Amino acid sequence: MSSIQEKFKKLGIDNAPGQEGMQKEKKLDLRGETLPGKEVNFSHGDVDAFIPIPGCYEAFKAGFEEGAAQAYTEYRGRKSIREELAEKIAAFTGAPVDPDSEIILTPGTQGALFLAMGALVGSGDKAAIVEPDYFANRKLVEFFDGELVPVPLDYMNIRDMAGLDLTRLEEVFKEGVKLFLFSNPNNPTGVIYSRDEILTIARLAKKYNVALIVDELYSRQIYENREYTHLRAGEEIPDNLITILGPSKMESLSGFRLGTAFGSADIITRMEKLQAIVSLRCAGYSQAAFHVWFSEPEGFVENRIEAHKEIRDDIVNLCQSVEGVSVRPTEGGSYLFITMPELDVSINDFVKIVRKLAGVTVTPGTEFGPQFTHSFRINFSQDHKAAVDAMKRLFTVMERYRTDRA
Amino acid sequence: MSSIQEKFKKLGIDNAPGQEGMQKEKKLDLRGETLPGKEVNFSHGDVDAFIPIPGCYEAFKAGFEEGAAQAYTEYRGRKSIREELAEKIAAFTGAPVDPDSEIILTPGTQGALFLAMGALVGSGDKAAIVEPDYFANRKLVEFFDGELVPVPLDYMNIRDMAGLDLTRLEEVFKEGVKLFLFSNPNNPTGVIYSRDEILTIARLAKKYNVALIVDELYSRQIYENREYTHLRAGEEIPDNLITILGPSKMESLSGFRLGTAFGSADIITRMEKLQAIVSLRCAGYSQAAFHVWFSEPEGFVENRIEAHKEIRDDIVNLCQSVEGVSVRPTEGGSYLFITMPELDVSINDFVKIVRKLAGVTVTPGTEFGPQFTHSFRINFSQDHKAAVDAMKRLFTVMERYRTDRA
Repeated sequence: MSSIQEKFKKLGIDNAPGQEGMQKEKKLDLRGETLPGKEVNFSHGDVDAFIPIPGCYEAFKAGFEEGAAQAYTEYRGRKSIREELAEKIAAFTGAPVDPDSEIILTPGTQGALFLAMGALVGSGDKAAIVEPDYFANRKLVEFFDGELVPVPLDYMNIRDMAGLDLTRLEEVFKEGVKLFLFSNPNNPTGVIYSRDEILTIARLAKKYNVALIVDELYSRQIYENREYTHLRAGEEIPDNLITILGPSKMESLSGFRLGTAFGSADIITRMEKLQAIVSLRCAGYSQAAFHVWFSEPEGFVENRIEAHKEIRDDIVNLCQSVEGVSVRPTEGGSYLFITMPELDVSINDFVKIVRKLAGVTVTPGTEFGPQFTHSFRINFSQDHKAAVDAMKRLFTVMERYRTDRA
Repeated sequence: MSSIQEKFKKLGIDNAPGQEGMQKEKKLDLRGETLPGKEVNFSHGDVDAFIPIPGCYEAFKAGFEEGAAQAYTEYRGRKSIREELAEKIAAFTGAPVDPDSEIILTPGTQGALFLAMGALVGSGDKAAIVEPDYFANRKLVEFFDGELVPVPLDYMNIRDMAGLDLTRLEEVFKEGVKLFLFSNPNNPTGVIYSRDEILTIARLAKKYNVALIVDELYSRQIYENREYTHLRAGEEIPDNLITILGPSKMESLSGFRLGTAFGSADIITRMEKLQAIVSLRCAGYSQAAFHVWFSEPEGFVENRIEAHKEIRDDIVNLCQSVEGVSVRPTEGGSYLFITMPELDVSINDFVKIVRKLAGVTVTPGTEFGPQFTHSFRINFSQDHKAAVDAMKRLFTVMERYRTDRA
């Protein structure tokens, strides 16, 4: 097998969200009746339940009608849109963004993440990531032939902070890590890094000259007005810092594939060079839909946060009512990372079984770190009642596989 | 400087089409008056002059209104759209395409090219490319740490075939080339490979087990009913073959960023794995615009070809009227690769000077191979009169820099 085939063997996506239809049929240990109910796909948010920002379609239409000027933009995105976004993002994050040199528009935040990693991780470079954290982070390090250096997040035993092991972080920085990448709020747990944690990460990165990529995708959807610290607005920040943000989550604009990265001009320049050979640009007409972002109708953000909080509360209460199940309530975003008791099937099989027997799709914990063999992630941005009913069915199925019920 | 910085230093885009606004100001040797006239950007087609396929916007709208099902598709693209396209592409290219395993939808054909190269080129792998050919081909080999092996195309001295040096091709295949990538019609010259050339490339690739990527982006826009051979429809084709096609050129759907790659199932699987970490998917709503592709209104394709042929003829005639200028008439697509006499400025400076003095943007030949220091490429998919006038201004400026006029 060639080196390239080896590389892609590691790059599995069969268990990735949305790819369930591609899974090969496998003989599953199905126990008991199928449970009727509305199918729910918790692997991503439901943009029919929480519709895109009003006006996005009209913004797209205006871009299409404008024609060539919107179809062909610079690879880093149309200048007028960069200017508009730089101002909005500076206001939101609390630190200036130069529209000419410090921001790039990308095909989704996945695009931003890929370009940032491609611009920063070379063959053999040590890259630190958090466990658990967004599954693509791991795959990106592997794709760019970097060396994965995990740092644990003790998210279950600590409150008032995310629980990052800062001692370990400093150790691996000392040992030559080139880049540290993390999401805040954390994906999959929805926990928010405390101000202290963020300031410490920034200080250590500066001290040891480590580049930082901070994925703030869910930072606009914070519950109970919890304090959120934008690393880039701190007093002591590293020379190489990229922040990632996009309107695909709370704003439900995912179908347009819009994202943005902003920060150190040198890195943005490299990202644009890479964009030129990856996909040229964020789709021209889609870029026009950026206009409605951070310009949502009055009450849109507040209502969306409140509606998600209600779903979160119901599902957290349900989890807490099931013996042996544990979860930390989401502090930001739409994810819950739920831990189950010992089952007599693997987490990957359990996920397939629940899909068959209950019509419920969730993402196995092992996507977020090999040790999360008893956990799964849900995105609860769904129809409220359907989501709660689906979770009840999931737990009913779970009971049939518990080893402590034998 | 780190290895990653070195790598990006080579990955220049300042002279890439559409990036002219990013060029740093440089002191230019400007001679004579500025020439008035409508600005023309020949670096890409003008979708205001040749508008997108009628109905594309309505198709997009229907996709947007359908909501979640169109927003979140499998990474390789929505199944129903893959089925529709597989059938259309099979009919067009003359060989079947399995919609489940042999096709992927991508963010533009640039996206298809990136994924295919990423799936096939590993560190140190020898990759053969044609000179001249699409500039990103070179950059992709470099980005994936492959070794660039150029094969010359003697496009000026030969008719009835593209002019590929097949002896050299077999030599480099023998010497261990893993992959051969070429565009047909060739970008930037617009020449079409003869049936013999295509069958020989296929036979040699099979014999030496070389993977092929055939970029057929302009294969629907063929002049004078010239014979066009789809390599994939031959009797003897290599095991690893990917063909690339998309609606961004003649069809003017570039603003949606749509492309597709089809061929060997193993490679398509690897490409999807890569797509999952690059940008997830071709923008969901944009995918809906694929419906109008290969379903254009009656006469659309014929009229578009005829209109482009008329522009081509006028510009070719103009070139032939200028002493010392040479060009081979385009056989397919909207490019002309024009060679000038000796000038006393570099081609990169000349391109900048013409932009300043004549309001005309062209792409320097050196983007397509280091030896093309006297050539530039134009995309003549422009307003007819504006394009011809712009070329007249370009040649007027050129006269001021000829060494043989001193």
